[in-house]
Amino acid sequence: MIKDVQKQRDLRNIPIQKVGVKGVEIPLEIERKSKDGLEKIVYAKADMSVDLPAHFKGTHMSRFIEILNDYRRECLKSDDIEKILFEMKKRLEANSAYLKFSFKYFLPKTAPVSKKTSLMCYDCAFVGEVDQNCNFKFYLTAKVPVTTLCPCSKEISSYGAHNQRALVKLKVSYDNDKHIWLEDLIEIIESSSSSEIYPLLKREDEKFVTEQAYENPKFVEDIIRDVVSGLEKNEIINFYEIEVEAFESIHSHNAWAYQKNQKG
Amino acid sequence: MIKDVQKQRDLRNIPIQKVGVKGVEIPLEIERKSKDGLEKIVYAKADMSVDLPAHFKGTHMSRFIEILNDYRRECLKSDDIEKILFEMKKRLEANSAYLKFSFKYFLPKTAPVSKKTSLMCYDCAFVGEVDQNCNFKFYLTAKVPVTTLCPCSKEISSYGAHNQRALVKLKVSYDNDKHIWLEDLIEIIESSSSSEIYPLLKREDEKFVTEQAYENPKFVEDIIRDVVSGLEKNEIINFYEIEVEAFESIHSHNAWAYQKNQKG
Amino acid sequence: MIKDVQKQRDLRNIPIQKVGVKGVEIPLEIERKSKDGLEKIVYAKADMSVDLPAHFKGTHMSRFIEILNDYRRECLKSDDIEKILFEMKKRLEANSAYLKFSFKYFLPKTAPVSKKTSLMCYDCAFVGEVDQNCNFKFYLTAKVPVTTLCPCSKEISSYGAHNQRALVKLKVSYDNDKHIWLEDLIEIIESSSSSEIYPLLKREDEKFVTEQAYENPKFVEDIIRDVVSGLEKNEIINFYEIEVEAFESIHSHNAWAYQKNQKG
Amino acid sequence: MIKDVQKQRDLRNIPIQKVGVKGVEIPLEIERKSKDGLEKIVYAKADMSVDLPAHFKGTHMSRFIEILNDYRRECLKSDDIEKILFEMKKRLEANSAYLKFSFKYFLPKTAPVSKKTSLMCYDCAFVGEVDQNCNFKFYLTAKVPVTTLCPCSKEISSYGAHNQRALVKLKVSYDNDKHIWLEDLIEIIESSSSSEIYPLLKREDEKFVTEQAYENPKFVEDIIRDVVSGLEKNEIINFYEIEVEAFESIHSHNAWAYQKNQKG
Repeated sequence: MIKDVQKQRDLRNIPIQKVGVKGVEIPLEIERKSKDGLEKIVYAKADMSVDLPAHFKGTHMSRFIEILNDYRRECLKSDDIEKILFEMKKRLEANSAYLKFSFKYFLPKTAPVSKKTSLMCYDCAFVGEVDQNCNFKFYLTAKVPVTTLCPCSKEISSYGAHNQRALVKLKVSYDNDKHIWLEDLIEIIESSSSSEIYPLLKREDEKFVTEQAYENPKFVEDIIRDVVSGLEKNEIINFYEIEVEAFESIHSHNAWAYQKNQKG
Repeated sequence: MIKDVQKQRDLRNIPIQKVGVKGVEIPLEIERKSKDGLEKIVYAKADMSVDLPAHFKGTHMSRFIEILNDYRRECLKSDDIEKILFEMKKRLEANSAYLKFSFKYFLPKTAPVSKKTSLMCYDCAFVGEVDQNCNFKFYLTAKVPVTTLCPCSKEISSYGAHNQRALVKLKVSYDNDKHIWLEDLIEIIESSSSSEIYPLLKREDEKFVTEQAYENPKFVEDIIRDVVSGLEKNEIINFYEIEVEAFESIHSHNAWAYQKNQKG
Repeated sequence: MIKDVQKQRDLRNIPIQKVGVKGVEIPLEIERKSKDGLEKIVYAKADMSVDLPAHFKGTHMSRFIEILNDYRRECLKSDDIEKILFEMKKRLEANSAYLKFSFKYFLPKTAPVSKKTSLMCYDCAFVGEVDQNCNFKFYLTAKVPVTTLCPCSKEISSYGAHNQRALVKLKVSYDNDKHIWLEDLIEIIESSSSSEIYPLLKREDEKFVTEQAYENPKFVEDIIRDVVSGLEKNEIINFYEIEVEAFESIHSHNAWAYQKNQKG
Repeated sequence: MIKDVQKQRDLRNIPIQKVGVKGVEIPLEIERKSKDGLEKIVYAKADMSVDLPAHFKGTHMSRFIEILNDYRRECLKSDDIEKILFEMKKRLEANSAYLKFSFKYFLPKTAPVSKKTSLMCYDCAFVGEVDQNCNFKFYLTAKVPVTTLCPCSKEISSYGAHNQRALVKLKVSYDNDKHIWLEDLIEIIESSSSSEIYPLLKREDEKFVTEQAYENPKFVEDIIRDVVSGLEKNEIINFYEIEVEAFESIHSHNAWAYQKNQKG
């Protein structure tokens, strides 16, 4: 029989908080209820870890992959995240477990005037944790590209105003028995920007978004405040973390704002 | 006179925790006392931010760059970080300030047998914070590439053992009136690995490091525990955060371990 | 009616070789015949460009997205690439067209001893070009991670040998009326390495791959020569370009080899 | 004596075009004559390769690092590139050699109205090649961030126009006995854009660049044509390759244009 080195007794007396695998690429089928029906996520990048009690020398890393393989065969629902975490605790003889599935999420987007529809891609993730007391915590993350148009530039210039692509990153958690749609988070962010971003715009749409952004100037400070307002109105959200980074068209560095709030 | 849009009154009543600039590339001259004398850091990437009180609409981002320019002209010492932070608070009318200078740090490295010396590059950073009570906190970060050789693979195989490049990321803080060398942090990490990494190895050195790694097998779990032991021995360190990520030669995903400790 | 600025006459008399869109994320359904049946690729990143004759001021970029949208609705077959290119030429009034679809390609991989199967991910692409004479050229690209074990380190050391993850990038073209499987290209590369890489290895498999790599030492030079040999045996291949980059476990820089051959 | 594995006879009869090291980080001191005097480049990333004749099994990779170390001690002048290449050919017993030094290049930039000066960073490189007939070829590369403002958006909108950061990448070669300044290449690119980018702009400058960009709308097609015009006027340039990529503020994909010309 082949020796189990990982299971050997470790004498340093140091428990490790997180140990696991990073960047596992896997064609997961996650079935996600979307507002318009069912969406299937079919590719994910997985990070998985558990704690390691002081007396074990190492974690059995191949078991993370085996668990992924088991769950990959059936179509995952989003509440399977919790099941996977408890499976990780059990099969890895651990007290706590952490999991992140990062994926591309596509939503149909209708151009404002031509009404042409195309698919917009958002980098999203499901993050789950189970602690030593078996408390489950679930997070949604979304990265949403938007347009920002500088209020100062508009105010002081005789014509025009510098504008640019910006990226808003949001992470939220909410009461376990409730539900929040990725669509709703994305909508809060897009409605807080100078203008939304679209994959496909015809000339009449381009006129519309150009004028809309000009009428609606926003600093990164304005966006983060409006996103905060939007999130604060939602009573089931108990944690959020926001970053806004604008790739300034007049500089080669970026403008950046950050806010984090743990309620209750 | 040109209107100051940023200074306008904001009515949303939301103070922002951090707002500023990211990725400013600047040829800073930071004079760093090294164990062997003086080292000059001559290029840095700067991230700078302050809080924004609820009543202001925006931050004056150009002032961050002006402050960098003022300090760039003279040669910075590492305790100038605190001065810059207070300057940021003052000129931006803020309560708190945050700063990160990321840079390449080169140390001479002598090959173990041939004794040939070359320069090893480490990605390091100085991070500083001043809070609303004027408390100053300073952090050092270092990313150190090392070799890990798998104890399980060695134990179960008749010959050979898989090994790989790994990256150890460390962030520490320590008592303000004391000093820790980047050299010492790097030494703790390198001595915790299966073998150090060198820019230049002749054949006799390659034989040495190959055999040394084989005699010294380490999981990412072993490395993080040994780094923790090393840091715990140092009484002036009051915070550390460690990540070890091994780019497994037998997988396309990575093995990863994480530990964080805030003392006192 | 809204003015068509792009269609205006340009007087600089400079035709542009390539102009288009980069990094379009799209949930394409590409049906790919694989050796074991049909595989569906369901996410791609698209780069698309055409030439721009001297007399036009600009290209109508939104049409690239419209073409993608049209083809997205039906399931693409790999010979639809040519159709899309001719559609691009027509709708953009261009002489030549270029297209790249980059995607994750998953293949089942059976561990050598335990016979456990998991899915291995490869970054692949379809590249197509149509020139002004309507000649169509098709390229396949694949990035394949492998293990390399250093022959010098093995030879000179009393025990062990440094090894590491390496990435082999391959681009090939072949006679239009013939077919080459991505699977075959990947097989040529993996069989040229010290050992293949697997997502899931149990202890008995880890013993196998460790010993196999040790028995089979290879420089990046050896890998590139063996891949060249494998490709030269295939008579329908008329172009190849290979890069091998090994993330050396004993250095923080990489070893690299490159070869390109245009036949006939 | 330790065996020289690399020098062993290889029987596959396949010469390799390029083999070497990638991503060597080194604090090179390159003394570069600039238009205003002398500039010192003090950090570089080096890629170095040679061909490998069919009869050798491998290249002696450590010699690349030794050559870098030898030249690092003295201050490099830009014509030392040729010397290093011939040294590479000699010490590695090769027929051809290739070298790339990538570095950050800083130039003082004066804001258009306030006349405040700050330092702008450009990613540049020196590339050199010596072929089997001892012909030396030298290339300069520069990546220059600029602002582009969309002519279509301006024309069709009642007010405003979308604009964004864009990156222009240029590679040129020129007659060996002549000289071209990086400053001149950067100037051709910046003067071809809607507006230059600055690290530091006060309000009066922001008004200036906003209005300048609005008065000066440019597609990526316009920029590449104007850069081509600028380069064609310079008679000593015998090769150029240009890429313009605009990070569209209204889309999450990029607009892109490409041109390459080998004269004579």
